[in-house]
Amino acid sequence: MATGAEFQKVPKEEVLRFCQSCMKVAGSSLSHGKQLAEVLMSADYRGHFSHGLNRLHVYVRDVQLNATCRDGAPEVLKETAATAWVDGKNLLGAVVGNYCMDLAIKKAKEAGIGWVVAKGSNHYGISGWYTLKALEHNLLGMSMTNSSPITVPNRAKKQVFGTNPISLSAPSSDGQSFVLDMATSTVSFGKDVVERKGSLQPLGGPEITGGYKGTGIMAMIEILTAVLSGGAVAGNVRQWLSTAEEANLGQLFVAINPECFAMDFEGRLADFLGCLRDLEPSSPDLPVVVAGDLARQHMKQVDEDGAIPYPKNLLISLNELAANLGVEPLKVVGPWLP
Amino acid sequence: MATGAEFQKVPKEEVLRFCQSCMKVAGSSLSHGKQLAEVLMSADYRGHFSHGLNRLHVYVRDVQLNATCRDGAPEVLKETAATAWVDGKNLLGAVVGNYCMDLAIKKAKEAGIGWVVAKGSNHYGISGWYTLKALEHNLLGMSMTNSSPITVPNRAKKQVFGTNPISLSAPSSDGQSFVLDMATSTVSFGKDVVERKGSLQPLGGPEITGGYKGTGIMAMIEILTAVLSGGAVAGNVRQWLSTAEEANLGQLFVAINPECFAMDFEGRLADFLGCLRDLEPSSPDLPVVVAGDLARQHMKQVDEDGAIPYPKNLLISLNELAANLGVEPLKVVGPWLP
Repeated sequence: MATGAEFQKVPKEEVLRFCQSCMKVAGSSLSHGKQLAEVLMSADYRGHFSHGLNRLHVYVRDVQLNATCRDGAPEVLKETAATAWVDGKNLLGAVVGNYCMDLAIKKAKEAGIGWVVAKGSNHYGISGWYTLKALEHNLLGMSMTNSSPITVPNRAKKQVFGTNPISLSAPSSDGQSFVLDMATSTVSFGKDVVERKGSLQPLGGPEITGGYKGTGIMAMIEILTAVLSGGAVAGNVRQWLSTAEEANLGQLFVAINPECFAMDFEGRLADFLGCLRDLEPSSPDLPVVVAGDLARQHMKQVDEDGAIPYPKNLLISLNELAANLGVEPLKVVGPWLP
Repeated sequence: MATGAEFQKVPKEEVLRFCQSCMKVAGSSLSHGKQLAEVLMSADYRGHFSHGLNRLHVYVRDVQLNATCRDGAPEVLKETAATAWVDGKNLLGAVVGNYCMDLAIKKAKEAGIGWVVAKGSNHYGISGWYTLKALEHNLLGMSMTNSSPITVPNRAKKQVFGTNPISLSAPSSDGQSFVLDMATSTVSFGKDVVERKGSLQPLGGPEITGGYKGTGIMAMIEILTAVLSGGAVAGNVRQWLSTAEEANLGQLFVAINPECFAMDFEGRLADFLGCLRDLEPSSPDLPVVVAGDLARQHMKQVDEDGAIPYPKNLLISLNELAANLGVEPLKVVGPWLP
C-alpha cells in the first residue's frame, strides 16, 4: 500500500484510457492495447505497483520500435486434448498470455487439465492476471514465465535467470481465494532498492540459507517455460530494456479442473486458508495472511477511494510519455491521503 | 558425502536385503517391502541420507501397528485421459507413489500429460524416486507431497506445514539430467541440527528475507496435493512418529511428454545445464552445480567403492532393530575411509 502525501489518485477507468491511448499511438491494434491496459491496471489495483503503469513506457517503446509485433494472433503449433504448444508470434505478453490461458481453460473443461506452453512471447506483466482467469471458471490456474537476466545463481557471479515468477490461483467457497503471485528471486524486479543494487538472488539468498533451493526452483521454471517451448533460455534472453532482438520468452499456462478429483475442493480450500488466517501471530500487530489477502485489502481500499494512488514522480514521467505521444495526460481526481 | 573413520561400507544389495527382510517380518507383502527397500536404498545411494535406512524403523513400526496397510493396491476413483484421482488405501507411500507415477507416465504417453493426485498415502521417501521413473521413458516427471507438521508459516508460532518437498526430473541428451529434489522448508527434516531445534522455517527464512514466498510455495504444494486429493491438510496431518491415526497424505505425480512441445527438448536442456555448469564461480573451489549433479557424484563414488557409507551409530541402531525382528544383521564390507 502506498503511503505519504506525495500521491495522487487516478480512477481505474482513467488508467485504462491512458494505457490504451498510448499503445494505440505507439502502433498496437486496439484489442492488443486494451489487453495490455487491463493487465497493467490490474497490477496497480492489486498493489503490485512494480508491474503496472510504471512499465508502460517499455511496452510503448517495444511496439514503436517493432521489437514487439503490433497485431496478429498467436498460433497453435501442436495440440492434444490436454496440451498445446503455442507460438506467441512476438506479440505483447498480455495477448499471448490471454490466448494461452483461455486455451488451457478450454482444455481443462474437456480433459481435466490444460497444459499450454508458449514461445515467442514478451513480458506479460503480473503472472496472477492469467491464473485469476481460471477462477472465473471454477478452475485452478497456474502460470510461470522466464524473463530477462537479473538473478545470479548460487555460486556464480553472472546474472543468468530472470525473476522467473510463478502464480497459482485456486478457488475458495468463501471468495477469499488463494492467489500466489511471486517472483522466485528474493525481491521482484522493479522495486527501487533492487534496481540500484543491480542484481537479485534466488529465493533463500546465499547457499548457506537455502539459496541453492531457490536456484533449483528458478531453473525448474526455466525448464518448464523456455526449454519446453523452445524459447530463449536464461542467459540467452535479451537484456531488460534491450530491443536488439526479440524477447522470445517461454511461458507456461495450466488450468486444472478440481471436479476430476475430490468433491468440494472449494470448501476444503476455504477451511485450509481459514485455519492459516486464524493462527496465533508471533507479533500481535502482524496477523497471519494468505497469498491473495493483501491484494484483496488493497483492492478494497481502491474501491473505497474510487481510485488508485500513484506517486507524483511516476505521474510526471507518464505525462512526459503522453506529451511525446500526443496523448491526453492522466486526469487525477485529487491527492491520496492515507 | 559422509566423512570420517566412523563409517562402515554396506553394498547396495545388502541394503536391499536388509530392508526387505525387516519389512517382511513386520508384515508387509513381499512386493511392498521390495518397493520400499528400493526407495530407501536409492536415497542413501544418491546421498540423501536423511531419507534412507535411517527411517526404516518408522516404516517397520507403522506396518507392525497396522498404521500402514500391509497389502493391497491403490484404487483409481476418477479418471480422464490425462488425469486420475487415486485412493492410496493407506498403503506404503512407495507403493502409492510407484502406482501413481506409472499411471501418470502411461497417460503422458497417450495424452501428452498425466496428472495424478492421491489421497490416503504415507511418507513416500525421496520425492525424486518417482520423478526419476519418468526419465526412463524420456518424459519429464514432477512430484510433490505434504507431510507431518514441522514448519512454522511466516508470522505464525505453530508448526503447520510439513517439509512439503517438490521434485522435477527432466531428461538431458548427455545423461546429466536435471533432478531437483528438495524440501520447501529451509532445511529438510531428518537432519540432526534441525531435529534438535524442533521447528523449520519456509524457504526464504524470516519475512524480511522472503520467507513469505516460501510460505506461499508450501501452501501451494498443500493445495495441489492434499486439498485437491481430499487428504489430510497441513495442521490436520498426524504428527511425525504418531500412529494414532492414518497419515492420509496427499501427493501429486505429473509426467509430461516433451514431444508435444518443441523439438529436441533433451538437446536444449543439455545446452542450458551446460551453460550453468560452465559459469565462472564466485569462489574458485566451489564450482556451479545443477540439481542432480551432487547426487550423481555421490552415486559414482558409491559405485567405485562398491558400497554405501553409513555411520556406525546408525548401523548399531539398525542391528538392534534387526535383532528385535529376528533378521540377520547388516553385513558390512569394511570401514569407509575418505
